[in-house]
Amino acid sequence: MTLAQDKASPSARNARTPGHQASLIVQGADATGIVSALTSVLSGHGANIVSLDQYSDNPQGGAFFQRTVFTLDALQAALPALRADLDEHLVRRYGLTCTLRDLSVPKRMAIFASKSDHCLLDLLWRHRQGQLPVSIPMVISNHPDVAEEVRSFGIPFLHVPSTGPDKSAAEAEHLRLLKDNVDFVVLARYMQILSGDFIEKAGVPIINIHHSFLPAFIGAGPYAKAKERGVKLVGATAHYVTEDLDEGPIIEQDVVRVSHADTAAELARRGADVERAVLSRAVLWHAEDRVIRNGNHTIVFA
Amino acid sequence: MTLAQDKASPSARNARTPGHQASLIVQGADATGIVSALTSVLSGHGANIVSLDQYSDNPQGGAFFQRTVFTLDALQAALPALRADLDEHLVRRYGLTCTLRDLSVPKRMAIFASKSDHCLLDLLWRHRQGQLPVSIPMVISNHPDVAEEVRSFGIPFLHVPSTGPDKSAAEAEHLRLLKDNVDFVVLARYMQILSGDFIEKAGVPIINIHHSFLPAFIGAGPYAKAKERGVKLVGATAHYVTEDLDEGPIIEQDVVRVSHADTAAELARRGADVERAVLSRAVLWHAEDRVIRNGNHTIVFA
Amino acid sequence: MTLAQDKASPSARNARTPGHQASLIVQGADATGIVSALTSVLSGHGANIVSLDQYSDNPQGGAFFQRTVFTLDALQAALPALRADLDEHLVRRYGLTCTLRDLSVPKRMAIFASKSDHCLLDLLWRHRQGQLPVSIPMVISNHPDVAEEVRSFGIPFLHVPSTGPDKSAAEAEHLRLLKDNVDFVVLARYMQILSGDFIEKAGVPIINIHHSFLPAFIGAGPYAKAKERGVKLVGATAHYVTEDLDEGPIIEQDVVRVSHADTAAELARRGADVERAVLSRAVLWHAEDRVIRNGNHTIVFA
Amino acid sequence: MTLAQDKASPSARNARTPGHQASLIVQGADATGIVSALTSVLSGHGANIVSLDQYSDNPQGGAFFQRTVFTLDALQAALPALRADLDEHLVRRYGLTCTLRDLSVPKRMAIFASKSDHCLLDLLWRHRQGQLPVSIPMVISNHPDVAEEVRSFGIPFLHVPSTGPDKSAAEAEHLRLLKDNVDFVVLARYMQILSGDFIEKAGVPIINIHHSFLPAFIGAGPYAKAKERGVKLVGATAHYVTEDLDEGPIIEQDVVRVSHADTAAELARRGADVERAVLSRAVLWHAEDRVIRNGNHTIVFA
Repeated sequence: MTLAQDKASPSARNARTPGHQASLIVQGADATGIVSALTSVLSGHGANIVSLDQYSDNPQGGAFFQRTVFTLDALQAALPALRADLDEHLVRRYGLTCTLRDLSVPKRMAIFASKSDHCLLDLLWRHRQGQLPVSIPMVISNHPDVAEEVRSFGIPFLHVPSTGPDKSAAEAEHLRLLKDNVDFVVLARYMQILSGDFIEKAGVPIINIHHSFLPAFIGAGPYAKAKERGVKLVGATAHYVTEDLDEGPIIEQDVVRVSHADTAAELARRGADVERAVLSRAVLWHAEDRVIRNGNHTIVFA
Repeated sequence: MTLAQDKASPSARNARTPGHQASLIVQGADATGIVSALTSVLSGHGANIVSLDQYSDNPQGGAFFQRTVFTLDALQAALPALRADLDEHLVRRYGLTCTLRDLSVPKRMAIFASKSDHCLLDLLWRHRQGQLPVSIPMVISNHPDVAEEVRSFGIPFLHVPSTGPDKSAAEAEHLRLLKDNVDFVVLARYMQILSGDFIEKAGVPIINIHHSFLPAFIGAGPYAKAKERGVKLVGATAHYVTEDLDEGPIIEQDVVRVSHADTAAELARRGADVERAVLSRAVLWHAEDRVIRNGNHTIVFA
Repeated sequence: MTLAQDKASPSARNARTPGHQASLIVQGADATGIVSALTSVLSGHGANIVSLDQYSDNPQGGAFFQRTVFTLDALQAALPALRADLDEHLVRRYGLTCTLRDLSVPKRMAIFASKSDHCLLDLLWRHRQGQLPVSIPMVISNHPDVAEEVRSFGIPFLHVPSTGPDKSAAEAEHLRLLKDNVDFVVLARYMQILSGDFIEKAGVPIINIHHSFLPAFIGAGPYAKAKERGVKLVGATAHYVTEDLDEGPIIEQDVVRVSHADTAAELARRGADVERAVLSRAVLWHAEDRVIRNGNHTIVFA
Repeated sequence: MTLAQDKASPSARNARTPGHQASLIVQGADATGIVSALTSVLSGHGANIVSLDQYSDNPQGGAFFQRTVFTLDALQAALPALRADLDEHLVRRYGLTCTLRDLSVPKRMAIFASKSDHCLLDLLWRHRQGQLPVSIPMVISNHPDVAEEVRSFGIPFLHVPSTGPDKSAAEAEHLRLLKDNVDFVVLARYMQILSGDFIEKAGVPIINIHHSFLPAFIGAGPYAKAKERGVKLVGATAHYVTEDLDEGPIIEQDVVRVSHADTAAELARRGADVERAVLSRAVLWHAEDRVIRNGNHTIVFA
């Protein structure tokens, strides 16, 4: 109990995504001089580096990953020239991949949900608090249950039924809705398997939350399987979706302690708290360009 | 991503508060034969013990605490006779205190809030999910900000302004609203200090969530103090309210890791997740009669 | 930095295993009146119950598990009559299994090790501190590396080489050494698979520490597999050994956070801290009769 | 249980401190172009950056902290010229502080201990495993109890008694032993208060482990105080020692869950596991130049 209210959200928002900041992700084969070349380019344009994270998976000839956040006055106007310089000094000279993004422009995130609302609600609430630097153009569900809740946050809700084994009509509708409208998709306990065809045509990263500590308990019913095996912790895993069910690159994981006295339903209840926490962290990090995919692995500069 | 939806809430609810269960809390000076006397009484009435937790703070002459949950057919009809037997065999013979309660009757919980909604929303959402065996007759706030949100859960919201140093008018209104309507009160980040007079007249347990790992950072502005001290973890503490600010019996605590890079606002954001988790656990345990007060300590049979 | 040294170990030892305490483990089909019958028997012998934990996996016709610790003067002399009474009132009447043990007699624990010493050393150190109520009649290893360290603790070390696919000679020697000398065996990162024949003939519980969060990464090289999969946590699992590799009943598990920057060797280093912590807890709980096996599950009254 | 032994330590050692690596710590007032100037200097000498961590406590005119690890052939021969260049381009131009160190030369760590051996033993064991890149020229204790244990690791043990209120003779002996022989001192549950005079004359960083989650329970007997307050977690804090008892900059903290059933002695036992873990992490990070002091705060690039 305290006398004065902490006012966390506005300044937290500002601290994380001030107006004139940009992120630059660089990855490729490591070589002597990359960091120097990169910082010279930024310095030449008057950029001030705010944070810099770097990782090389092997000092002798490995892969190189760097996330740089910098401030630059008149950022939007300066981007084309900066891109050209990066292209010349990093892409063409070192064969690196460079991704430059204005952090004041939030990524557009579509959410897919089913009947469970714990992950969905946590994302909507954090978004409203200013904790997630994204816009949410739509929530899509194969059930109407969460419609009212979603709309109470001022977010459009779209019901796309998906019954029977043939998902092609639903997926076609999904693609029509997503096309050019979103930068990434989050499956917030969406209980339908996406086809490889859909994943490819969607063409944006898709983040899923799986309700187990992968690779334990792949597939359906992980809490029932966890009860059956008698584990003492249950967990959750946020990962990028690939064609192989529950096999994509892991972004974040966490666990919670359970006991012999917990039923499978109780494991699900305890696990739900971990699911929403893990998914929220993964979404935040993805939104802030803190996650770099490297084959089936992720580099997370959290 | 899975094929079939786990259906956690209905069975979880049943598992935790089935219709014909009762809880019996016994505490007092330890003596040989108490457990035997107690189980004989229950057995004599045909009760079947579902769970039993017992703690003695000193095998030689200490204090004794026991929580027993049992099933009994026609429970409501059987309670008077059972109470009489407990009175004869435990209260009068051993000087113990016995508290018997029909678990199918939910405790009535009033929530006090201010502007922050993270703890409030988490309680309302868990209640709607069937995770908290309570009824919520009212939410009272000194600000109107959360009114709409509370009412969207179908819960009455009451705005009782409280400005200036004299809280007596507001507290009188609080007492009028609470009188005979609630079994306990939860301060879900309520940013007003309660007077000792109010606490006494309210006459029900009051649970507060303090946004630090007590006894560190007592009083106002704990996240700013935590930043100032340079701690590497921030925490939250749920405790029963007493006249001494932040000094009451602790029910539950937890922490989360932070770093030098986190601003005080970021500490508040990370801490908010711990606050809601800690408060929800404390409320659940209190609602299920799992917390026994012993002076300034608690026995928690979680 | 403090002025006076806390003196933890002697009183901790006493607190956990005072001279005249006994444990009673009861398990079987649940029925109304068991707890009452059990406490009546104890009360009739003048026993004072110090702690009591009970679990029923289903209030309607499930299995019942109870651990009771009690004090009784002249315990050794009283045990035969107490056993006879338990046999009459619980075993024959309710078909329950009763295991009664004088807690002042430590269980005899043999440790099997290989080259790694982190789990072994932690057990030997905790034993010397008085934290583990066991005696350690021998440490057996297939390598001589840890001999000097073991003997510095005053514990006999026995080198039983085990090379080649045929383990029968080594296992015969193991059985000869263990016979009638030990109450349970701990595999403290023992890198040999035990045959089903050995497990059966040994006839005592065998606890293993597996260096992953089972059921993830069963079998050899779990840290390399964890690195390959890109997990964000690594774990360890203590379990009873059965014929099926890494499939026995789980006693305890825990995890630690890792990052993309950790090599497989670094995962092993971080995991080693979890392994020793998990194994030490499992051994303590087994030594204090806190673990009850139920098929492939465990009930842990920790 | 696995078929092949993981061989963690040798490669872990190499991974952390390969032969030709150096660390460069830079701190001071932030300014545009620092990172670029710094990387240009390194690049000009043919250094290859292995890892780079950077933190600025305020993008507008705050303080700047950077840790860079790089490889450079013929490192020892190259250091003087590199130092001169850093002096010209960073120290004189930007007013920064630069600390350059050959990581193949381990820091020399003296350990002070009293009777408790859990923190001491953990450091000695990790050092033997190759997990701590330090040399240990001496262990000093005010009691002879741990002498044999220390010497079994091949480390010199020195007994310097310190009784009575006047510590000046003992401290003079400490200073004589430490002079020019050590780079930092670790108080591994050393139960004597160091005078401000000693701290100043020692002239090297001193790391202490306090057995509470600071700032809770400052001073003597924290576990007894924790029991008295009824906390649900106990913790430990590693910090640099200053004249103000338990007030120095915090390096690392952690906690463990406890319950009402734990005595103060049991809290001490559980806390001891946290103490050794926290101290080991703090020592590792200090040894690898991952900790930068900033007033009463630390920047930890872990």
